Amino acid sequence: MLKILETRTAPNPRRVRIFMAEKGLEVAYEDLDLMKGALKTPEFTQLNPFQRVPVLILKDGTAISETMAICRYAEEVQPAPPLFGSGARGKALTEMWNRRMEMGLLLSVAQAFRHLHPAMAHLEVPQVKDWGEANKPRALEILSIMDAELATRPYIAGQDFSVADITALVAVDFMKVARIRRPEDLKNLDRWHKDVSSRPSAKA
Amino acid sequence: MLKILETRTAPNPRRVRIFMAEKGLEVAYEDLDLMKGALKTPEFTQLNPFQRVPVLILKDGTAISETMAICRYAEEVQPAPPLFGSGARGKALTEMWNRRMEMGLLLSVAQAFRHLHPAMAHLEVPQVKDWGEANKPRALEILSIMDAELATRPYIAGQDFSVADITALVAVDFMKVARIRRPEDLKNLDRWHKDVSSRPSAKA
Repeated sequence: MLKILETRTAPNPRRVRIFMAEKGLEVAYEDLDLMKGALKTPEFTQLNPFQRVPVLILKDGTAISETMAICRYAEEVQPAPPLFGSGARGKALTEMWNRRMEMGLLLSVAQAFRHLHPAMAHLEVPQVKDWGEANKPRALEILSIMDAELATRPYIAGQDFSVADITALVAVDFMKVARIRRPEDLKNLDRWHKDVSSRPSAKA
Repeated sequence: MLKILETRTAPNPRRVRIFMAEKGLEVAYEDLDLMKGALKTPEFTQLNPFQRVPVLILKDGTAISETMAICRYAEEVQPAPPLFGSGARGKALTEMWNRRMEMGLLLSVAQAFRHLHPAMAHLEVPQVKDWGEANKPRALEILSIMDAELATRPYIAGQDFSVADITALVAVDFMKVARIRRPEDLKNLDRWHKDVSSRPSAKA
C-alpha cells in the first residue's frame, strides 16, 4: 500500500487523493497540520527540504514530493484509466490543460488565499495584499476561458476525464476558501463542475 | 519538421530550444516579439487564449501551448535520450526536481523580473514591487538547497542530465536579467552550472 503524508484541508493533497481514488489505488494517508508548523520540523524537512505536502513515501524509503510527481508515479504503476492522456498528441494536450489549470487557475486562487487570508499571515511572509488582490481578476479571466472551451467538449482536456479536471475542480472549490465568488453566468463551467463533483472521487 | 512560435529572449522558449537540441530534433522557430504585443493579436489568441509562448504547431494544425507540454510531446516522438527520467521511481524523481526548479526557482526569478523591471510595466499590470522583492530571497534560498543537493550527485535530479537541469539552467541564467546576484560561495552549484552551460544545447 502507498503511504502519503498530507494536510487534509490543503488543495494539493486533495488533488492527489482524487487522483488515487480515480486509479482505485489504496493509500495510507497520514495527516500533518501545516498550520501548526508540522512541515517545519527537522524530520519533515529531511523528507522535503521545500517543506510542502503531499509527500509519497516509497517502500525503499524514497520520499517523492510535488503533487504531479506523485500522480505520475501512480500513472506508471497503475496505467488504467489513463489520467495524463494517451498518445503523443493526447498526452501533450492533457499536459497543456493541466498546466493552464495549475499555473493559471490554481496558482491564482492559492496566491489570493495565501496573501489575503489572515490565517496565512504566519506562513506567507510577507503577505502582499496587492498581489493577493491582483490574482482575483486573473482567476476570473481563466474561468471565462474555461467556460468557452467547455461549450465544445465534456472535460477540460477533451472527451475524457483527466488530471486537468482534477486540478480544475480543486481550484474552483478552493475559490470559496480564497473568497473569490464564482460568476453565475458561466453555464458550461457549471455543467462541468456538477458533473465532476458528482464522481465518487470528488469526496476523497 | 516541428514548428514552434516563440520569443527568442524569453526563458520558457529557451527551455524548449535546449530540450529539442538535446533530443536532436529539428525545429523551425518563428520569433514573435512579446514586448511589442505580438501575443495579444486575435490570430495568436486563437492559437493560445492564454497569450503565451512557446506554442508548438502540429501538422494537423493542433496548437500545443505550455513549455512542458511541448517537451513531453518531444519525449513521446523521440524517446532517446530520456529527459523525463526512466522507470516509475526515476520519472517521479525527475518530475519532482523539475517542479521544484519551476515552481520554486524559475517562478521566483520570473516574478522578480516581471514585478520589478521597468520594461515589464506594460505587460504585468499591476506591477507589485513588494511581491517582486519578496521573490528574491526565495530564489536565493532555493539556490542553497540546490548547492547542498549537488554535493551528492552530478545533476539536479540524479546521475543523468534531465529536464530539471534545463529548467534550473534557464532559471539561473535568467537571474542576471532579473537582477538577482548569484552568491559566490555555492561551489557545487557553480560546478554544475559550468558543466551544463558547456553542453552544446545551452547555446540553442
